[in-house]
Formats: sequence, C-alpha cells, structure tokens
Amino acid sequence: MRRMDDLSTEAKASDGGGTGAASTGYRLLDAIAGKAVDRPPFWFMRQAGRYLPEYRQVRAEAGSFLDLCFDPARACEVTLQPLRRYGMDAAILFSDILVVPHALGQPLAYVEGEGPKLEPVRDGAAVARLDASRLHDVLGPVYETVDRVRAGLPAGAALIGFAGSPWTVATYMVEGGGSRDFPHAKRFAYGDPEGFGRLIELLVSSTVDYLDRQIAAGAQAVQIFDTWAGALPESGFDRWVIAPAKAIVEGIRRRHPGVPVIGFPRGAGVLYRRYADETGVDALGLDTAVPPGWAAEALQPVVPVQGNLDPVMLLAGGDAMITEAERIRTGLAGGGHVFNLGHGILQQTPPDHVAALAERLRGPIGG
Amino acid sequence: MRRMDDLSTEAKASDGGGTGAASTGYRLLDAIAGKAVDRPPFWFMRQAGRYLPEYRQVRAEAGSFLDLCFDPARACEVTLQPLRRYGMDAAILFSDILVVPHALGQPLAYVEGEGPKLEPVRDGAAVARLDASRLHDVLGPVYETVDRVRAGLPAGAALIGFAGSPWTVATYMVEGGGSRDFPHAKRFAYGDPEGFGRLIELLVSSTVDYLDRQIAAGAQAVQIFDTWAGALPESGFDRWVIAPAKAIVEGIRRRHPGVPVIGFPRGAGVLYRRYADETGVDALGLDTAVPPGWAAEALQPVVPVQGNLDPVMLLAGGDAMITEAERIRTGLAGGGHVFNLGHGILQQTPPDHVAALAERLRGPIGG
Repeated sequence: MRRMDDLSTEAKASDGGGTGAASTGYRLLDAIAGKAVDRPPFWFMRQAGRYLPEYRQVRAEAGSFLDLCFDPARACEVTLQPLRRYGMDAAILFSDILVVPHALGQPLAYVEGEGPKLEPVRDGAAVARLDASRLHDVLGPVYETVDRVRAGLPAGAALIGFAGSPWTVATYMVEGGGSRDFPHAKRFAYGDPEGFGRLIELLVSSTVDYLDRQIAAGAQAVQIFDTWAGALPESGFDRWVIAPAKAIVEGIRRRHPGVPVIGFPRGAGVLYRRYADETGVDALGLDTAVPPGWAAEALQPVVPVQGNLDPVMLLAGGDAMITEAERIRTGLAGGGHVFNLGHGILQQTPPDHVAALAERLRGPIGG
Repeated sequence: MRRMDDLSTEAKASDGGGTGAASTGYRLLDAIAGKAVDRPPFWFMRQAGRYLPEYRQVRAEAGSFLDLCFDPARACEVTLQPLRRYGMDAAILFSDILVVPHALGQPLAYVEGEGPKLEPVRDGAAVARLDASRLHDVLGPVYETVDRVRAGLPAGAALIGFAGSPWTVATYMVEGGGSRDFPHAKRFAYGDPEGFGRLIELLVSSTVDYLDRQIAAGAQAVQIFDTWAGALPESGFDRWVIAPAKAIVEGIRRRHPGVPVIGFPRGAGVLYRRYADETGVDALGLDTAVPPGWAAEALQPVVPVQGNLDPVMLLAGGDAMITEAERIRTGLAGGGHVFNLGHGILQQTPPDHVAALAERLRGPIGG
C-alpha cells in the first residue's frame, strides 16, 4: 500500500497548480496520487440525478430507471449534465449498483416510490443458481456509456467508474430490496457463513470483472460503494467488508496498476482506520459523521480522503453551507483531500445551492 | 466526571460476587459504579416488546400503543414480563420517547405499520406554541408505572428509566415522524440555529423534569436514547448531541446525586470518545458498530460501557450468537461493562434464542 507519509513535503503543498512535470493533467488523479494541486478537486456523489430538471427530462424519455442505466446515449448525457453546470473535477458514471445482480440473472425491477425489488437469494442453492457467464453481455451497454462519457468530458475532468461493494450488493440480493435492519442478509451471513461466503466470492469476482471492463472502456478511477458497511459488528466488518475490498483492490491492481480505487465504507466509524490500513485502497470516502480532525490525524497519514459535507447542508444552503465546506477543506488541507459530500445529493436539493457551493470549491481554500 | 482509571484494581476484578460491603445490592448499579461484580450484568434494549406473545396479548387489550404507554397497570405488566422469562439484572420502563412532545402539546398518533405521526414543528413560531405547563399532568401515568414496577421487581433487579435525547426527539417533532435523511430537522438546525436551539432548550428542561420525576418515583438509573446522534456531522454533534446531554446530566446530578445517567449516542463512531469525555455520563451505550477492542482502549478508561451484540444475532441464534456474545464479554472484561445489545430487540426474534443467550449471560464469562 502506498503511504502518504512516504511522500515528499512538496506533494502536500497546495500552491503547485497541478501543472508540474509530474501532473497527470487531472486534479482528481493528482490529489489521489499525492501530487501538488492548486486546490482540492471536487465532485459530488449522486451529482447526476433527480435534483436536476434536465436529468428528470431525460429520465422521463428513457422509460424505466433500469432502461436509463442501459441506454448509453442517455446515460452518457445525464453523466455529463452536472459538469456543464458546475465544473466538477470528475464525472461519475451514471449507473446503479444493482446492475451486477441483474447481470447475474437475479430478476430486478424498480418500483416507483419504493425502490428496487429483487427475487431474494437466501440460501446456498439460490446462490448456486446465479450465473456469471452472461455478465459482460448484459453489462455491455454500461461499458459503452463509459466510452462515450470519456470522449465527451471537458479537459481536466476525470471519469470515475464504480460498483457496489459485495456486502452492500448482497444485502439487496438477500433482502430482496432495501432494508433497515438487514435481518435476512445477516441471518444468512451469521448462520451460514460458508454459503454466504460463496455469494460474496461471486460478487468479488464479478465486481473485479465489471470494473476491469469499465477501466478498459475509459474509467480513470473506480469507487466501491459500501453504503451499509456500518451495519456490521467488527467481526462481520473484517470478513464481509475488509476482506472483499482487499480482494477487489488486488484484482484491479493486477490488471490495471496505477488506476486508483476509492473505498467508501459508509458508517465504518473507528473501523475506517483498519479499512485504510488493510484493504489497500488508494483513497477513502468519508461519510458525514467522520470528524475532519480525526481523519487528518488517523487517516490522511495512511491514505488521501474524500468527503464529507452533509448533503442536507445543500438543502439549507447559504452561509452555513459555505462555512461547513470551508471547515472541511481547512481541516483536511494537511493531507490528500478530494472534496465531496458524505452521502449522495438529495432529490429536493435546489440546483442554485449546488452552484453556490461549486463556485466556492473552484476557488482556493478560505477564498 | 468519575474516571474508571482512578478506581482501585479490586473494583475491576470479576470474582468479587457483588456481595462486598460496598455493594449496592444491584449488579447493574455496582458495575456502573465500578464495584466488583461476579459477572457483567445484562439487560436488552426493547426487552419488553412485540417478540413476546404475552406482550402482544396485553398490547391487544390496551387499545392503541399510546394507550398502553399511559396505562400504569398494563405498562407495569409488560415491563416485568421479560424478567420473568429471562432473569435480566434490570428492567427498563415500558414507554416511548415521544410521550414528551405529546406532553408538550404536539399532536401525536401511532399509525399501525407506519410508526408515529406528529404535526410538524418547523419554525420558531411553532416552537413557541409548545407548552411545558402540563408536562407532569400528562406524564403522571408514566410516573405511576415506575412506582408500580419498582414495587414488583425481583430482588437485585434494578429499574432503569429513560427519555429520548433532545436531538433525536426533535427529529421526530420537526419531520413529523421517522425519517432517513432528516431534511427538515437539519434544515431547521443548520438554517436557523437560534430557533432550533430554543426547541432543544425546551427539550433539555422538559427531559430533566421528566427524568427527575421518574427517579423520584423509583427509577434507579436513567438512559438517554440518542438514536440518531450518528446522523450529524461533528459541528452538529457538538451542539445538538454533546451540549444537551451535558446539560441533562448536570440537571439530574443536581437533583439526584448518585443516580447514574447512561448515554447512548447511537452511531457516534469516533465521536463516542468526546461524548464520554465531555457529557459526564456515568455509562456509555455502544451501538453494534463499535469494536470492543477500541472501546476497551479508548472508552472504558473514562467510563463503563454497555453493549453491544447485534440484535440480528438473536434472529440467527445458535453458536454464532453465543460466540459473538462471549467475544464481547471477554473484550470488555478489563473495565466496567453492562452487557446489552447494540440496538433494540427485533420483533421477529424467537424468544427461545433470547432464553439461550440469557442463560449464558447469567453464567461467568467464557462459561
């Protein structure tokens, strides 16, 4: 694992402009690689989404949500929309973490107002019926989307691919949709760890294959979303969060050395530190609850961090939002930092508030 | 604040039997006070509840959920039910955190299958209409329940009273019910901190008055449930979680010195440490995500801890449940520890699994 504290002090300066000989030409990639940047790069989780009227229009034309995910022209369009408005330093592929179970043959539908519905996979026999042989056939349109987005990006804006983490994707697969307490997924994991382990292994290998093709199609970094990492006790976190993330990082690194993997184990609390130490991720997404001061002390010496403004701050807007954003940028200025939210943009967010935040973030810290 | 590391080593021994001269006669109170106990005391959050058939019967007779909360005979009965089956070291008053807003005049109803519904309080004017003058009139039946439970408890079983934390109660009051992202509550808190602060102040004083009367009626310890503490960023956590908890602890301590206050800032992650340092709570409830090893290192030197078995382990039952429970008891054996879950018992929990866990917990660690 690359360690930030091995880097020269020059790499931590914030006045380099990202234009030195060693720059990649991308503020996002420079920050993750520990190179000098003029200011922290920024992008927002769920930046392509329903808070934008132009997204809602394309979404209405596309048919279902899943149709939009598998429509390269429209998925490319909605991926690029927020960059036109706000000039982020990165685009993130528009897709959904559940396209992987869909590609493994698990029936999936999105019910308006209720979220995803899947036919639950709750035992070893159901796991054995999943089939990875058609993965790339089904996911082909996603790779085409990546290719189109990369071609359409403005100069200096990087393209981030992504997948859900095995644990988080498994919760949806086992519960048959969203859940608050994960009774079925945890009962499976706790009561039959070997059977559940086979599901996780299948998801690890499918995720590596999926991200491999995203990178081949043009993704310059990939993020693993582990939205429900914080629901597990330590023993489960080690087995179902850290070990699969480590395996994915190793798989990606073997095929694409130098392409950074961003891990986002949301809600990991003090276990963020062990995730940083043990998975080998190149950057660490922080949720809203992580104190910047602790991240600066405990995490940034190990790995650059990404985060972590409360997305609800974007509902409030105004001075409170700017003050909090600057508190985060200042608190994390001593190490590698990619500015982001602590969770995805909410649907009710006023686009003008995003504009005000982005304007500040395009300037220097404190400026 | 009492510090565990000031205590004599004898207080940390686990073979004292809780029968020394200094024992309170209650394993729970001894453990919180740092006195010798023969094994960690245990109780379970939401131990009186729908997973028990005898609870469901009383609940059906009572009318609405709120009717049950305000029916001293029946509320006393359901409070005592789990102790008859499982021999916990403590009962926790059967009630609900939303009886306080109800007593402040905010209309409240429980809709079957949907949870609580309140008329939202979203600005300073709505806060000003809340009225604490009838607090004790409305909550009188709760105090009567406390009195009855105390009289009906088996020897050695302590009675815990409780209230919701101001922040958590405020989220329900402002959202008008449960929420995932707390858009209204956070918008109020971030956008109008003075107005929101008046709501929090009202809840602090009402909570102190409410817990004061519970203690006067027989509660021997009180717990503050801050279920949504983990939803706040650090700045909000300081202002809306730590400061109100500190004020409540001070208020209780002034009126009832020696009655312990247990704080449960669920999801606080690394901020658990500051909560322990700054609020003055006598014990700290740990959610499922807190690693026992970290709690032993960072928290138990400051304050005894309570927790933190994943309640879903009780759905799985069997060896996995016992192994995990013993991992927690062993990991926390070097300091003050009250065994509990990391969150409330789930409705689908088989009572036999609770019996198997309780049987193990009534024995020595590792036994």
